[in-house]
Amino acid sequence: MWKLRPPLELPLASKYKSVIETLSRDTGTVIKISRLSAEEEFPELHRNYTLMARVLTVPMYKRLCQKVTESGFTFDDVIQPGLEDPGDPARVTVGCVAGDAESYNLFCEFFDCIIKLCHHGFQMTQSQKSNFNLHNLKGAETLDGDYVLSCEMQICRNVEGFSFPTHCSRGERRQLQSLAKQAFTKMDTAFPGKYWPLHELAQEATDPGVNDCIASGPSVMMMRTGVARDWPDARGVWISQNETVYIWVNMEEHLQITSKQEDGSIKEAFGLAINVVRKLGEMYKELKHPFIWKDHLGYVLSSPAVVGTGLKATVQVKLNHISKHPKFEDILSRLCLGASGSGVCTIFNKRTAGVTEVELLQLVVDGIKLLIDMDKSLGLGEAIDCLYPTQK
Amino acid sequence: MWKLRPPLELPLASKYKSVIETLSRDTGTVIKISRLSAEEEFPELHRNYTLMARVLTVPMYKRLCQKVTESGFTFDDVIQPGLEDPGDPARVTVGCVAGDAESYNLFCEFFDCIIKLCHHGFQMTQSQKSNFNLHNLKGAETLDGDYVLSCEMQICRNVEGFSFPTHCSRGERRQLQSLAKQAFTKMDTAFPGKYWPLHELAQEATDPGVNDCIASGPSVMMMRTGVARDWPDARGVWISQNETVYIWVNMEEHLQITSKQEDGSIKEAFGLAINVVRKLGEMYKELKHPFIWKDHLGYVLSSPAVVGTGLKATVQVKLNHISKHPKFEDILSRLCLGASGSGVCTIFNKRTAGVTEVELLQLVVDGIKLLIDMDKSLGLGEAIDCLYPTQK
Repeated sequence: MWKLRPPLELPLASKYKSVIETLSRDTGTVIKISRLSAEEEFPELHRNYTLMARVLTVPMYKRLCQKVTESGFTFDDVIQPGLEDPGDPARVTVGCVAGDAESYNLFCEFFDCIIKLCHHGFQMTQSQKSNFNLHNLKGAETLDGDYVLSCEMQICRNVEGFSFPTHCSRGERRQLQSLAKQAFTKMDTAFPGKYWPLHELAQEATDPGVNDCIASGPSVMMMRTGVARDWPDARGVWISQNETVYIWVNMEEHLQITSKQEDGSIKEAFGLAINVVRKLGEMYKELKHPFIWKDHLGYVLSSPAVVGTGLKATVQVKLNHISKHPKFEDILSRLCLGASGSGVCTIFNKRTAGVTEVELLQLVVDGIKLLIDMDKSLGLGEAIDCLYPTQK
Repeated sequence: MWKLRPPLELPLASKYKSVIETLSRDTGTVIKISRLSAEEEFPELHRNYTLMARVLTVPMYKRLCQKVTESGFTFDDVIQPGLEDPGDPARVTVGCVAGDAESYNLFCEFFDCIIKLCHHGFQMTQSQKSNFNLHNLKGAETLDGDYVLSCEMQICRNVEGFSFPTHCSRGERRQLQSLAKQAFTKMDTAFPGKYWPLHELAQEATDPGVNDCIASGPSVMMMRTGVARDWPDARGVWISQNETVYIWVNMEEHLQITSKQEDGSIKEAFGLAINVVRKLGEMYKELKHPFIWKDHLGYVLSSPAVVGTGLKATVQVKLNHISKHPKFEDILSRLCLGASGSGVCTIFNKRTAGVTEVELLQLVVDGIKLLIDMDKSLGLGEAIDCLYPTQK
């Protein structure tokens, strides 16, 4: 019969009590003793639809559950978001986060599998390449303006020397904000703008999107990943003078650079975003806290779903016909794209690693062009078989 | 000028690296090195309306922030819920939790102040007394049935040898569920009933209150306090055969015993609840995991707002007149009662420590009687000055 362990007996803890006390006093150490076995602690993954649940096994858990990064991130911390939100068959999330760059090394057995699933088979033997050269982007100018309504580029970066927003302490978060303010000041000649701490923003900002975010507070997702702790302390947004570029500080990642165009000028939106990111990167390098880049992972971020380029391109497209087509999901999947909405759709890239920035944008541009062609054909009552994309 | 610390330099961590590694391997230890000072990590408490914010100072934080209980609960863990939900002037919460019984000792400098504020000046020199003798409860039978619509008693208990639901691991939570099942089986002759794990309950239970709880998932409050982790794993509810008593397992506390009457029979509801709690207590003692009781704190629970008796008496009362009176809040506060709603009100006790169970119920009974008298007077257009309670 199953036997309860005796209460309040921690033989290992007692054995190490004096060394723990010394350590604790001298280093500000947090120590947690796990009394139970990996099998007893293994999570319930039945009806869990995350990629985490697809990857995690008992032997893997056994190997990883007692490891901890230098900043104190454990494997249980890694998988916690996916245990709190198991998703459903129609909504598959990654279900895990990294707490610092070291997480990807220490728990690579787990993260490499997740990254492979997220990014179209991206292997740990591959290395990430960066290419910002917009001359290589073909056909972005000829997107049909009757269909493409607006576009947004978002580029995320984390900074060397700090835990990620999923795990950083209040002090770290404040240092990160000070660092960001210094960088913004330094780049003011090239890109004039103003930094607004979140608590000051509520009254001042005119952009309804910004105000919504402030008024509603952090999302449930941000609460689950630990990003919302101490809200709104040391968060804010830098807004360029002409209000085309926003840089969020200490939200899901250390820095989140967004540029928006109210038409289909993908090239302009992207061009602006990369110019700001480049300048910002130089400033952070001068401040001795460069963006975190690894050969295999590219830009290292808290979500394995966005490592690599850290780039998300979102385009609003009027697709009245094709978005209601029964094969729409399959077509999107073949194009490596995601979509939300029907009629006017928001189309975005799903993978971020194993391709360069320009290659990724090329996928989006080509995909949208094809979707528009298919939509036009369906509007004329024509078949779309000849336009159907092959599996990429 | 403010100076950034050098990135990725952890001299203390390096000094202790080998000892940390040994400890980690041998004990399953989680180690977190804090690089920053207590001043740098001190939380932003401006516009924070919790009792935590009222009590916490920089010197206190400095003394407590590096302490950790044997099970690994830190002072930052204690105050986290109040940082995520600062409340507002009209909604003052405690803003803190304990992760285990030791939290109240290790962080007593903080918790004693909170308990004093919650429980009407209850001092750490006082000790908690328990009295379940219903013969000492006067006047409960003569509550006016035209006014009192229903009543509910809730008694919470935690169990020796485990962290609280705010902090326990998956393995601990499962052991607690097994322990509860054993206790329920052992008390089946005296109190027949059936235990439903949460995931099985959704289809089976007929009580809409229970189904709502299952369907909506854990509350935001449960997410903030850490209670919702790994939901719904190892949670459930025991329901008595006649469906008058519910015992929730691994929700806000290890055990939450609830008994309900669809009229004003406070004595019956309480009598039933205490009989079940007594029996359950005997069973847990036999299983070598008694309920946690300390002379000063009484029954030790994760929220300092409910330590002492762990008892919440909730009574639905029709108070059409007095509940709309401008002095209603002041009257309630003088009676040590809380209320929600208007017209038909839910009246409940606010303090749980420094009084026995019977004294606490006497406060509720006397208070409700007075409120009904005042309501009757107002209904007849009479003044209520002569009924006005003195400050307790």
